[in-house]
Amino acid sequence: MACELCTHLETPAWSVVAATPRLHVVRVLDAPDFPAFYRVIWNTHVAELSDLSDADRAHAMDTVVTVERALRDQLSPTKINLAALGNLVPHLHWHVIARFARDSHFPQPIWGTRQRDSDLDALARLGLALPAIDERIAAALAAS
Amino acid sequence: MACELCTHLETPAWSVVAATPRLHVVRVLDAPDFPAFYRVIWNTHVAELSDLSDADRAHAMDTVVTVERALRDQLSPTKINLAALGNLVPHLHWHVIARFARDSHFPQPIWGTRQRDSDLDALARLGLALPAIDERIAAALAAS
Repeated sequence: MACELCTHLETPAWSVVAATPRLHVVRVLDAPDFPAFYRVIWNTHVAELSDLSDADRAHAMDTVVTVERALRDQLSPTKINLAALGNLVPHLHWHVIARFARDSHFPQPIWGTRQRDSDLDALARLGLALPAIDERIAAALAAS
Repeated sequence: MACELCTHLETPAWSVVAATPRLHVVRVLDAPDFPAFYRVIWNTHVAELSDLSDADRAHAMDTVVTVERALRDQLSPTKINLAALGNLVPHLHWHVIARFARDSHFPQPIWGTRQRDSDLDALARLGLALPAIDERIAAALAAS
């Protein structure tokens, strides 16, 4: 079965924010409770972080931190959540998610039990900040 | 409120496997469905990966990969799951978890919905492999 991250990098499920020769950064569009949700997707089909060379791993983690810093600086979230799971799609990708104390699942992981309804006003405010975050990530990757 | 990772590194919830001057590696003992579950805990109280210097971040991620490689080599898991969440305890720590296609939650994250009962024989076999994994991690950190 073809890997969907190898074959469908363009999808309505996300917006491609930036790329380097080795990876893409996308903003997730199909998790409405979590607008400030990005992924760093390694271009070649490897499953695990330890499959990368040291230099490639450094590039991947530098990029994860670039996204994290953009989220922290623009949103001052309660917490950043980082995860490389890949149980459903074993092609290396990092989730980088800004979490807030009153979001729908906090303090549970986004994959855990919902704690409350999302605050629609808060989601709308978050939405307004996303273009600046996208731009900052793109600028940082272009300069790296 | 005191941070529990600052004050209670010795706890029945895990076994300390190895340490460097900057971090500890522990094996989690209170997640019975997931025996091959380790954490890399940064010693000083920082919340986010991006709070570390480049050198410290490299040390943290090198250690995460050391644990990942020990799990892969000894267990050939279906997938490794990595996560730095910290919503409940905002003190930087990485979860490094060996996942198997028939474990209790696969392909869901361990924080997601249970999919089936754990296979007790499989858990028992996993348990037998853990001392060798602990030793390998300790040896790798001692040599680094």
